[in-house]
Amino acid sequence: MSHPLDLTDPLAAKKQAFSIPEGTIYLDGNSLGVLPRHVPERIQAVVTREWGESLIRGWNDHGWMDLPARVGNRIARLVGAEPDSVIAADSTSLNVFKVLVAALALRPDRKVILSDSGNFPTDLYMAQGLRDLLDRGHELRVVDPAEVEAAIGEDIAVVMLTHVDYRTGRRYDMKAIAEKTHAVGAISFWDLAHSAGAFQVHLAADGADFAVGCGYKYLNGGPGAPAFLYAAPRHHGTLAAPLTGWMGHDAPFAFDLDYRPARGVDRMRVGTPPILGLSALDAALDVFDDVDMEQLRAKSVSLCELFLSEVEARCPQLELAGPRNPDERGSQISFRFEQGYALMQALIARGVIGDFRAPDIVRFGFTPLYLSHADVLRAVAILEEILRDRLWDREEYKRRQKVT
Amino acid sequence: MSHPLDLTDPLAAKKQAFSIPEGTIYLDGNSLGVLPRHVPERIQAVVTREWGESLIRGWNDHGWMDLPARVGNRIARLVGAEPDSVIAADSTSLNVFKVLVAALALRPDRKVILSDSGNFPTDLYMAQGLRDLLDRGHELRVVDPAEVEAAIGEDIAVVMLTHVDYRTGRRYDMKAIAEKTHAVGAISFWDLAHSAGAFQVHLAADGADFAVGCGYKYLNGGPGAPAFLYAAPRHHGTLAAPLTGWMGHDAPFAFDLDYRPARGVDRMRVGTPPILGLSALDAALDVFDDVDMEQLRAKSVSLCELFLSEVEARCPQLELAGPRNPDERGSQISFRFEQGYALMQALIARGVIGDFRAPDIVRFGFTPLYLSHADVLRAVAILEEILRDRLWDREEYKRRQKVT
Repeated sequence: MSHPLDLTDPLAAKKQAFSIPEGTIYLDGNSLGVLPRHVPERIQAVVTREWGESLIRGWNDHGWMDLPARVGNRIARLVGAEPDSVIAADSTSLNVFKVLVAALALRPDRKVILSDSGNFPTDLYMAQGLRDLLDRGHELRVVDPAEVEAAIGEDIAVVMLTHVDYRTGRRYDMKAIAEKTHAVGAISFWDLAHSAGAFQVHLAADGADFAVGCGYKYLNGGPGAPAFLYAAPRHHGTLAAPLTGWMGHDAPFAFDLDYRPARGVDRMRVGTPPILGLSALDAALDVFDDVDMEQLRAKSVSLCELFLSEVEARCPQLELAGPRNPDERGSQISFRFEQGYALMQALIARGVIGDFRAPDIVRFGFTPLYLSHADVLRAVAILEEILRDRLWDREEYKRRQKVT
Repeated sequence: MSHPLDLTDPLAAKKQAFSIPEGTIYLDGNSLGVLPRHVPERIQAVVTREWGESLIRGWNDHGWMDLPARVGNRIARLVGAEPDSVIAADSTSLNVFKVLVAALALRPDRKVILSDSGNFPTDLYMAQGLRDLLDRGHELRVVDPAEVEAAIGEDIAVVMLTHVDYRTGRRYDMKAIAEKTHAVGAISFWDLAHSAGAFQVHLAADGADFAVGCGYKYLNGGPGAPAFLYAAPRHHGTLAAPLTGWMGHDAPFAFDLDYRPARGVDRMRVGTPPILGLSALDAALDVFDDVDMEQLRAKSVSLCELFLSEVEARCPQLELAGPRNPDERGSQISFRFEQGYALMQALIARGVIGDFRAPDIVRFGFTPLYLSHADVLRAVAILEEILRDRLWDREEYKRRQKVT
């Protein structure tokens, strides 16, 4: 099976940079990205040469200490952030906590964190934990995604949103939301878990104050890769860091007894950086070095549109869950199907790896660097067959096995 | 150079399990442990097979999701903790924050965190950050290590101490301190950074309430390896978790909008676990599987005593910084020397890797699994020569080079 659009795809050769298991069409790069081919060699070098041979001197000789800033600066380009405004550190959840403290400190007279019910739960959980810990009358106000804009009022301290909805792929207009947020004097905070590496983000140009994001989805940093944190340079002077570990100290190796914050976003570091995870993420980012992010986005739209039109033509059982307009989407297409869990199991058994999200969403992520239009057609053909033959229905499947 | 004690050392063969660079005597395993020989193979398998081939299914098929608990249970044996009371997660600094919140929640009527001026600074920094964040009149009271016992009074909420002093190697009597702490109704919290893997710790038997520790020192988990956290089972029912990420949720994949803590110490998990770092630590712990921890301690004392007696006999320029009685020490020997930094540089240039800690401490860590008594003698011989010929003095060194 081939597709003419692949012949003119300027990113077609990038697929060779990834190690994709034989017989797999991987539509789950928005959950865990595929292994870039050169990462094992880099990790082996970090383990055997950097750790094994340099030992403690590795911190200086191999630049381990600067990895959070160096990797942060590489991510900065993909998310449209200023130099030295991003660090790679800790998990997305922990970075949410840090940002919320910093954001609330900038608006001490306000008590409301606004978010939406489509947000990824851990962001809401971290806000709930902080609210309870502070015990100073803060409120986490969760509204329907469609009601967010209207809910941005004068009592809001911070608007915390995930840019692309993990279930439906719906994308917020960052610039419009940030403008409205600033108009009422609030802070604009974005989770880029399903944005970074999926398309060009414009944090600085769109006026975001803070952002966090994930290293193991579209950035392909490997399972549990370090996350990242962005703080706009205009906040660096007064940035409140709550998790005041030694790596966020202005002079960690002076071993002072009192904490004194490092300059800028560096104070958002906490403990000793995880060198294996950071090195894998650093190596994974090599793949993006020569990628034109506008081409990446164009291919993402092309793959998503092809998938959507083919599914709608051939699989009428599925109902689109998310925007039809590509401008309002990230890089995924989701459908509602009552037996979604069983359907996804049947797809996975046939080599088409997507994801199920309760209660009834089947979700397909499109990573332009390692997917082709031919992959999309093959995936739809398998999906069509499963739906036609009701292969998602285990009883139905067993009955057929007996007949043949 | 050989030593008769090595011939009867039951742990002598363990050295073969580690990859030690040629010509190096590594006395810095209390800063970054040496690479166990089999770790590169395990990491390669995790990267290429588990991540590369299983992709998202790795979370189930390779038990990634349970790694924090599984690794925690392996560490539990080394620190004398009950099953299911330890998790491997995040950094030591972050775990200090979690424990302090949990400890303060158990003593809401008290406001003082007691610690000592010999504590590793990040522990103090995290306490300062939490105190400022809570802004409810908490106090971090830092006293001289010699005055800690006397300072444990009725106003103390939690006694936060590092078991073995990172500069001097002085070790607290955990049982005595914990008893005194409990007698005044306070919580006993220990940082085991320089204890775990260095000798058998007895958290449960000694009555500790909480502990944290480091994965990359005596446990050999690699640079920036995940840290660990212990909570005594008697606190599991009411454990307050402040960093309420989805991995600490009772049902992370239900994607509920509201946080509901997991049972026991699992609620101290926050974000997605770092699989590369956890796998390296997990593999590194294999080395301890057949180690009798009493033999380990006996060898540690033997190495330290030999080093101390030889240095005192041959290097009178150095002044012992720390206890003379092995029962009051961890697994390191430290000396004061005014030009300590220059001395350590000269030692490192000759292949003897120790550490300098401001203002004037040279510190030597003794890891019984990969050091021999012959190593100790060689190290002292080099130290003696450097001191005799004043090789630490660059000017002196240059002058000699000219003469010869």
